[in-house]
Amino acid sequence: MDIIDQLTDSLRCLPGVGPKTAQKLVYYFLKNHRKKALLLAKHLTDAMTLVKQCQECNNFTIENICKICKLTERDRTLLCITEQPTDLIAIEQSHVYTGYYFVLTGKISPIDGVGPDDIGLDKLKKYLEKYPVKEIIIALPVSIEAQATMQHINLLLSNTGITITQLAQGVPMGGELQSLDSLTIANAIRRRNLVDD
Amino acid sequence: MDIIDQLTDSLRCLPGVGPKTAQKLVYYFLKNHRKKALLLAKHLTDAMTLVKQCQECNNFTIENICKICKLTERDRTLLCITEQPTDLIAIEQSHVYTGYYFVLTGKISPIDGVGPDDIGLDKLKKYLEKYPVKEIIIALPVSIEAQATMQHINLLLSNTGITITQLAQGVPMGGELQSLDSLTIANAIRRRNLVDD
Repeated sequence: MDIIDQLTDSLRCLPGVGPKTAQKLVYYFLKNHRKKALLLAKHLTDAMTLVKQCQECNNFTIENICKICKLTERDRTLLCITEQPTDLIAIEQSHVYTGYYFVLTGKISPIDGVGPDDIGLDKLKKYLEKYPVKEIIIALPVSIEAQATMQHINLLLSNTGITITQLAQGVPMGGELQSLDSLTIANAIRRRNLVDD
Repeated sequence: MDIIDQLTDSLRCLPGVGPKTAQKLVYYFLKNHRKKALLLAKHLTDAMTLVKQCQECNNFTIENICKICKLTERDRTLLCITEQPTDLIAIEQSHVYTGYYFVLTGKISPIDGVGPDDIGLDKLKKYLEKYPVKEIIIALPVSIEAQATMQHINLLLSNTGITITQLAQGVPMGGELQSLDSLTIANAIRRRNLVDD
């Protein structure tokens, strides 16, 4: 296989890139964007070889402890559990959360053979021994696996006195009712609240 | 800027990749596809540093002369002019063309300041001095710039005795008339031919 075919093949590891798009990308780079492509290659190599998981919270980091865990001015009594580091970023961007995070390494899914031991709960227990957490906010996407994971964490921590909460479920901002699924609408009706004055 | 942000930023050089998609890609690679990403980085670097233009035809190659120009069993009297190497591949995949190729380095576009000197016609002239070309098939996409380029080549070679042809224009295979533009339909009507027995 020659160098161009190799690159075309490699680019297909990008989600949604088929053979035609991969070929177009190769020639796009070769024609006018060689410097950009070389920089992309360097940044890919750097990130893939240097980024690891935070020893405290599993967030991605290039040091042993991530940027957020290193902060001292945040609220140590609050811990938010997310499914992946991208969810953590999304929560940070909302600018309302002032506690720390713990990223699970998976979610309980008996069908896929993922049990409670595989999602990093041992590490969570150690975290809770180290820090005076009073409330855990479980910020998992709404799904059956998330439900199972949430119930398991709730059970696991039932005797610790820690309050376990979850994100509110309902109609998202700008969400047109006609384009929402019926489960979301059912949840929004069930959990309806009084209109504020 | 940290390593993850750098990679997110670099990935945005991919056509159609915005900040959200770039971020998803970074975590997709970091989570389960590090080896693939490292291989992609290597292949990007190899291609961007080693691939150059064929000395004869401008096709991309890692040697001085490309794979096709090196072949000896093809028809030296036939030359197909394309706009870019991807067009050359598309023609090769149709398996009906047996001649050689010449890839232009652009197309004439006075608005963009691209004149006849910028599209590699000097090199084409040298090519024609070297090989006994009898027919040139101009395989440019249908556009005003291509039209100008075609007319210029026709003029340039008017005294050489070389026959200049162009790809047939008309309705593509599987093309529904209702979704084709009216220029294509007009061309197909103008250039209509007798139904074969």
